[in-house]
Amino acid sequence: MTRALVRHNIEESKAFIETMNIKPKSPGILNGLRFAVKDLIDLGGYKTSCGNPTWRDTHPIAPANAVCVDQLLLAGAECIGKTITDELAFGIDGENFFYGTPLNPRAPDRVPGGSSSGSASAVACGIVDFALGTDTAGSIRVPANHCGIFGIRPSHGRISVAGVNPLAPSFDTVGVLACSSDVLAKAASVLLGCDVPSGFEIGAVHLIAEAFAACDTEVREALARPVETIKTIFSGKVRETLLREIDAQAAESGLKGWYDTHRRLQWAEIWSCLGSWVEEAKPELGPKTAMNFQLAKDLDRETIAEAVRQREAYFSLLKEFLGPDDLLCMPTAPAPAPVKGSLGLDRTVGDYYPRTLCQTAIAGIGRLPQVTLPVAEISGIPVGLSFLAGHGKDDFLLAAAQMFDSALAEA
Amino acid sequence: MTRALVRHNIEESKAFIETMNIKPKSPGILNGLRFAVKDLIDLGGYKTSCGNPTWRDTHPIAPANAVCVDQLLLAGAECIGKTITDELAFGIDGENFFYGTPLNPRAPDRVPGGSSSGSASAVACGIVDFALGTDTAGSIRVPANHCGIFGIRPSHGRISVAGVNPLAPSFDTVGVLACSSDVLAKAASVLLGCDVPSGFEIGAVHLIAEAFAACDTEVREALARPVETIKTIFSGKVRETLLREIDAQAAESGLKGWYDTHRRLQWAEIWSCLGSWVEEAKPELGPKTAMNFQLAKDLDRETIAEAVRQREAYFSLLKEFLGPDDLLCMPTAPAPAPVKGSLGLDRTVGDYYPRTLCQTAIAGIGRLPQVTLPVAEISGIPVGLSFLAGHGKDDFLLAAAQMFDSALAEA
Repeated sequence: MTRALVRHNIEESKAFIETMNIKPKSPGILNGLRFAVKDLIDLGGYKTSCGNPTWRDTHPIAPANAVCVDQLLLAGAECIGKTITDELAFGIDGENFFYGTPLNPRAPDRVPGGSSSGSASAVACGIVDFALGTDTAGSIRVPANHCGIFGIRPSHGRISVAGVNPLAPSFDTVGVLACSSDVLAKAASVLLGCDVPSGFEIGAVHLIAEAFAACDTEVREALARPVETIKTIFSGKVRETLLREIDAQAAESGLKGWYDTHRRLQWAEIWSCLGSWVEEAKPELGPKTAMNFQLAKDLDRETIAEAVRQREAYFSLLKEFLGPDDLLCMPTAPAPAPVKGSLGLDRTVGDYYPRTLCQTAIAGIGRLPQVTLPVAEISGIPVGLSFLAGHGKDDFLLAAAQMFDSALAEA
Repeated sequence: MTRALVRHNIEESKAFIETMNIKPKSPGILNGLRFAVKDLIDLGGYKTSCGNPTWRDTHPIAPANAVCVDQLLLAGAECIGKTITDELAFGIDGENFFYGTPLNPRAPDRVPGGSSSGSASAVACGIVDFALGTDTAGSIRVPANHCGIFGIRPSHGRISVAGVNPLAPSFDTVGVLACSSDVLAKAASVLLGCDVPSGFEIGAVHLIAEAFAACDTEVREALARPVETIKTIFSGKVRETLLREIDAQAAESGLKGWYDTHRRLQWAEIWSCLGSWVEEAKPELGPKTAMNFQLAKDLDRETIAEAVRQREAYFSLLKEFLGPDDLLCMPTAPAPAPVKGSLGLDRTVGDYYPRTLCQTAIAGIGRLPQVTLPVAEISGIPVGLSFLAGHGKDDFLLAAAQMFDSALAEA
């Protein structure tokens, strides 16, 4: 049940840090479409602030577009602005201490989600047809979910990250947030360098039981009808699968083992990538970001070797389990968007972060592509449903997502 | 035919820009092994110069080790130094304008190959058991070949690049150069986070005909005996395969199409990643490096979209062709190491670069792991033979490489 967009203008959206008009370089399948770019991704001739003023001040103007931006301009799309990101993309909230909180037009008192907060807002406000985001641990999927739009985190290593500031390279991806599953498929296919197949076969659709069980009751209830619809339409193909059929250890820890592994390796990589700037530039950081970097700095690096081994073990289990035509299906996030200002400074306190990041860890650990569709709402607050495919099966996933979206719209 | 190492000390090797003693963080399977680290990879508490003094001056001390370094220290290995790299890793020569040319102990009048020149030299001189390198377009495989040692470029996206300076992220990898196939397998397995299988089945071994045909006659002749040995031992599994069985267009252009695609995307990414520093810091660059960056800057970025599509098309062809137990086999480089000082400044002049980079483009384009083994020589100058496996089949490839190495040593 895709809702009509609640339109807002650029100023009302508070999604942009800068607007401009970069014309297409040549015509293509994105003719007539407008896009925005997360301010972690270079636009040639502009500074990339990565959501932090000190970063902006200590880095030069980008001499060239990120490769992904050039791809879109060459396919006929027009770029109209740079959108707010959580500082250094280290966050899933969408509340930037320096640049503000982009509007979540579907739930104005709630956060848009981050770190691709401005990109999600710009799309949800109807200002652009799609936007570029990045997703390391949920930074496309979470804001797409909270703002009621479509989003894809691609297979890791598939879309070029050249000209995109790294956060944790073993998990970093560039992807798309869009107003419809068709625009999502078009824009993502340009970045992926492939066509979205028109004919394809779906194998099994595995509903991950633990991921549904871990949600708020109201999220589960909101998703009940779309899930039933999918079960009806694809009867015989949809089955409830326990994570422990994939990972025997999950019988005890559920998704927590996956999240812990993701978190350790991510924090280790963040400090390896950004620690030198934090230590040298001594940037003014928002209080949440300062605590986040402290966590990354304080990570016990003795755990790195085991985290890598565990990540590869999970990766192999998923690879063995998921057939080439199979999909996983799960809620994108376990709870609706939090009320603005309600999240504490310390992400290790409370359960919002671990619960959300447990859901997002599967694609991260598995290097899998994931598409989130806006399929339901709780008193107007958007709730998304996600599909994941095997590594490198992005084109198939986009086609399947279009089909599910149509099926749900007709239901 | 692995030769005994020609031992040289640190000073004679000219391979290091700095030495130190970083003790293991815990015991493990690398107990007692010493390694060196390419100066593109962070060691906490030290500056990473990336082979260029201005880079060193304009960047802070690394606050943490790269993730790959921590993995090795946690597995029992000891780090003894930082090794010379071609500037910013943009080169395959091993002649650094500022830091000199590490010794190729097997052919002292010839270049060691680059960009992991110092790492190859340190291993070949017997100073360390193995060394970390990076490989974007051949930077591990070429120097391992020229110095007569073992090297692995892993599957793209498999080993963490956090704390490693990017060059062209769609192709960047961290890998290992080693004195033996056993040490190679041990060290690489730590980074890969997996075990090397003891039991495994080899499917087809495809000798890529065009890659052999493109070599100097003397390289082909030097490889004839090891190839015959492999044919004899694995009779029925080894076959001559034409690249055009994988890529029909190769009937006309051979490997040139693969190389061109690699080059365009690589140069585009290099400028997206490093252009801002080149423009802002206005670094003193070696004359070859200055020309290389000019090529990256001048690349017609209108060709990016097509290069990405072509890369993915080749990638898919390879993926369809290569079964899970199959290997490709080809010469690592088409010619022996060039004489020092013989390479011109402009890589677009002469055929050394395009011929070499045609051979290395297959793994780059295909995201495939590749191991090079020192199997022959021409008047003492080393010649390597390479094996490539499917994407993600690094553990299988390492085991197969150990087996081929044993078989060739006994022959």
